[in-house]
Amino acid sequence: MSRSHFEHLALAEQARWAPQFVPVLYHADSAMALVVMEYLGPHIVLRKGLVRGELYPLAGRHLGTFLARTLFYTSDLYLTAAVKKERIGTFLANSAMCKISEDLIFDEPYFSAPLNRHTQPQLDALAESVRRDTALKLAVQELKARFLSDAEALLHGDLHTGSVLVTDGDTRVIDPEFAFYGPMGFDLGAIIGNFLLAHASQLGHERTRGEREGYRTSLLAQVSDLWTTFAHVFADLWRECAQGDLYSQRLLRDAPELRERAITVRLQSIWDQLVGFAACKMIRRILGLAHVEDFESIADAERRASCELAAADLARDMLRNRRAYVNVAALIRAARELT
Amino acid sequence: MSRSHFEHLALAEQARWAPQFVPVLYHADSAMALVVMEYLGPHIVLRKGLVRGELYPLAGRHLGTFLARTLFYTSDLYLTAAVKKERIGTFLANSAMCKISEDLIFDEPYFSAPLNRHTQPQLDALAESVRRDTALKLAVQELKARFLSDAEALLHGDLHTGSVLVTDGDTRVIDPEFAFYGPMGFDLGAIIGNFLLAHASQLGHERTRGEREGYRTSLLAQVSDLWTTFAHVFADLWRECAQGDLYSQRLLRDAPELRERAITVRLQSIWDQLVGFAACKMIRRILGLAHVEDFESIADAERRASCELAAADLARDMLRNRRAYVNVAALIRAARELT
Repeated sequence: MSRSHFEHLALAEQARWAPQFVPVLYHADSAMALVVMEYLGPHIVLRKGLVRGELYPLAGRHLGTFLARTLFYTSDLYLTAAVKKERIGTFLANSAMCKISEDLIFDEPYFSAPLNRHTQPQLDALAESVRRDTALKLAVQELKARFLSDAEALLHGDLHTGSVLVTDGDTRVIDPEFAFYGPMGFDLGAIIGNFLLAHASQLGHERTRGEREGYRTSLLAQVSDLWTTFAHVFADLWRECAQGDLYSQRLLRDAPELRERAITVRLQSIWDQLVGFAACKMIRRILGLAHVEDFESIADAERRASCELAAADLARDMLRNRRAYVNVAALIRAARELT
Repeated sequence: MSRSHFEHLALAEQARWAPQFVPVLYHADSAMALVVMEYLGPHIVLRKGLVRGELYPLAGRHLGTFLARTLFYTSDLYLTAAVKKERIGTFLANSAMCKISEDLIFDEPYFSAPLNRHTQPQLDALAESVRRDTALKLAVQELKARFLSDAEALLHGDLHTGSVLVTDGDTRVIDPEFAFYGPMGFDLGAIIGNFLLAHASQLGHERTRGEREGYRTSLLAQVSDLWTTFAHVFADLWRECAQGDLYSQRLLRDAPELRERAITVRLQSIWDQLVGFAACKMIRRILGLAHVEDFESIADAERRASCELAAADLARDMLRNRRAYVNVAALIRAARELT
């Protein structure tokens, strides 16, 4: 099965539940590995915009809505178990793409993998200390266990800021060729981790001290918007559209408060997991094979290393001390304290 | 796909990893829905033996070994992700059997399902109060979420004391037609929950007061043996045979204590989940459709109800107050306090 086969299947599924946030799919042909979709202009890649310091005030809310809708409608809250298992089966065969994520996100940054790289010599001590950090590696492998086993919802699978096209008022998610059934916190963690990388890189892009101060604040506001919107839309969908095999209606008759309690518990558990996955995505971009333009475009190695170190320190604390990041306000407070 | 198709597939897999604890498989034919296996005599069904008050001193250890081996060898600790996904796919089609479990274990005891039954009128108040117990229903649905989504290892899927044939020295697990990839704590919880039901039913089988006192203690010793053996064998397999994609060897080089830390963390999390699943299995046998001979064979309704109430109270506390059951000693202490 080709990448384009799964890209097309995932795009079709996303288009069903969140059509305004993906390109229109015109045609697909698995045999030809062909996907024909809408040309998006004047959109630019979100990551490039963030490097330039441009504002996309709706991006966080749009992405939160996209995630709430795609995760809810492909989960046990909406689908019967039999239908969901059929969908899981369809995407199980995308294991080669999943394997790339498994290696690059959860394993390679934590040992001396041949293709790892980092800003040298400034980050040598960090890389070394991460490899010896047993508590950190334990936290990351436990998240990998969830990535390998928990088929909760259909994920985009690679939702970083380079997989999002934006204009001032429009947001489109592209490139879902890593799609698979996985844990709900993964896509959320991926995109929030990438916003945090963008935030940490801003000091490296300042031409004058304090120039990007306001912009940094607005990036953290995006994180807050994204999560708050996700939580709000997800809860509303659960209240209004739940028809799956989990928390079925018949259980509510004698316990009407069950649903609201369940929404609170589930959102907290998605949040807790998101913090871990976000941190994994941050570390891989600093110590692993594939880096991000946010940092790479900082020509001065000292300044780049300083931004990377701040982001890595935050990420490491998010993994080792996850309970301190109990909600989005706590996460934003910690990010704001980055030097 | 017929029940016998999945029974044969699961039996073949179990026979590969724990041959001494399953019947020998001679022949299978999916088209004819045929499985030909070893005739086991003079074995009897474990549940029947427990009702009679007979001792099978090795059963706990054998079942602990069976579970450690079947769960380890079908998990990400032993298999590569690609191979495990292929296995998951094979058993996804067994969704009709899973649906029976989903309904009977996690849903029906918690609302007025038409086929529910319980000892009346003695348990009317319990049934009513369980239906209104929001915290209990929340805990149970969160376990159902794990049952629906967490494809950690190949499970037997219906491992109660009626699915085990025993002699003094031999233990064989039969009837794996509910097999699927699910959470590791489920089979463990099922069998331990059934030992706890057997334990709670003993007072109802006494002809003279105190007659089964020693036997009750030996049943709890079986629970302890089962868990302790599971933990020991599972940990040793992890140390000696791990070759899967999780906690891969290359991560141990710079953090040699990672594996022991991971074993501790993982066993605790399996234990925590087991407590919840065990309790679900107990409640379903008291308030749901299918009851167990342990209680059904107590002719006197007052005595039966008293045993059932004690078991249900324990199970409910295990679900509502799971942190109090932090290890097998705490669980056994609580069970011993049953009146």
